[in-house]
Amino acid sequence: MKKAVVLVSGGLDSATTLALAREQGYACYAISFDYGQRHKCELDAAQQVARSLGVVEHKLMQLNMNDLGGSALTDESLDVPEEGVGEGIPVTYVPARNTVFLSLALGWAEVLEAEAIFIGVNAVDYSGYPDCRPEYIAAYQRLADLATRRGVEGRPIRVEAPLIHLSKAAIIREGARLGVDYGLTTSCYAPDAQCRACGRCDACRLRRAGFKTAGIPDPTPYQL
Amino acid sequence: MKKAVVLVSGGLDSATTLALAREQGYACYAISFDYGQRHKCELDAAQQVARSLGVVEHKLMQLNMNDLGGSALTDESLDVPEEGVGEGIPVTYVPARNTVFLSLALGWAEVLEAEAIFIGVNAVDYSGYPDCRPEYIAAYQRLADLATRRGVEGRPIRVEAPLIHLSKAAIIREGARLGVDYGLTTSCYAPDAQCRACGRCDACRLRRAGFKTAGIPDPTPYQL
Repeated sequence: MKKAVVLVSGGLDSATTLALAREQGYACYAISFDYGQRHKCELDAAQQVARSLGVVEHKLMQLNMNDLGGSALTDESLDVPEEGVGEGIPVTYVPARNTVFLSLALGWAEVLEAEAIFIGVNAVDYSGYPDCRPEYIAAYQRLADLATRRGVEGRPIRVEAPLIHLSKAAIIREGARLGVDYGLTTSCYAPDAQCRACGRCDACRLRRAGFKTAGIPDPTPYQL
Repeated sequence: MKKAVVLVSGGLDSATTLALAREQGYACYAISFDYGQRHKCELDAAQQVARSLGVVEHKLMQLNMNDLGGSALTDESLDVPEEGVGEGIPVTYVPARNTVFLSLALGWAEVLEAEAIFIGVNAVDYSGYPDCRPEYIAAYQRLADLATRRGVEGRPIRVEAPLIHLSKAAIIREGARLGVDYGLTTSCYAPDAQCRACGRCDACRLRRAGFKTAGIPDPTPYQL
């Protein structure tokens, strides 16, 4: 059975990506990162998502990216904005995050002899993150072709980003079709102690609007 | 003063690279990784090299790449070969290692507003590692241009590999010119408890031959 490494964050997009990889017939190996994100809700969610979608293995890697600083998602001294999606690259951008995650996934894929890596980035709702664009994924594919033993041997590992051109609503419709339980997922940048969503950060706004546009009930637990 | 992030492993090549970055006028920020390598000798060496070459800061990141398996350098179940440099990609190749290290260096460079990343790879003595080739570095540069805030803003972070076309002997001559103390560095894949080199692994063979060809005394402490 062909294998794929799937980046699973605990969010809506990566859960849908995992369901799509499974639909394509891959034995899925989920990988998640404890990278110094302020809250651990998403790691619990990642575990539940991976289990519910029948992965072969779920690997959680420790990675102190808050050591590097520079993002509201990992640096306690920066505030998460609540004023809606703005212009340019937001303060919640974590420097080189997808590049680091893809690189570790690539290493695992080589060891597993996997054919593909799946990542749930999308360019439509990317909110100004440079590492969510199609040209970024293409550049990563080129790098993967050159960086790995498989690539040198002419059997490169494919970097799959099946959500890249989908809107949030379209992603939710795909997931609903594949039976993804979005009640297990979390998107909020600033959840409370019970992991309930704030409803005000960029991620909450995009998610909420997505369910509304898709015409699918939003199972997210919000703070009062 | 312009800044550079320099990957420092504790080996001969990265020490020379750091000296070259300093010669080019950069304020240098060294980064090393505790990635599950079997021995910690190289981390001690990295610290001494960084200090001796006057870095502004030396960051040591924890990274459990042995979690991913697949290399004799991190996996206790695989033997380090002692029969000399062979054909193809050796068992000491760590999957995606340079890709992972460059990605974390890229993240730090973004946070620091650094202009460049320096890595001590070289294609001449690369012993079959795919991620030490010029085309790999070029692909990484393209990725860095697209992945980062600086790249989007038209001020990309340069990926510098000043040793890429140098032989081991030429590297050693450069380092000697710049006053690098190679007695502080370590290259061996299988040192003993006192961090003395085995003299038999690929890395030892290349290093020993390099000093001989350069006509410079080899300060490496070898096992008896």
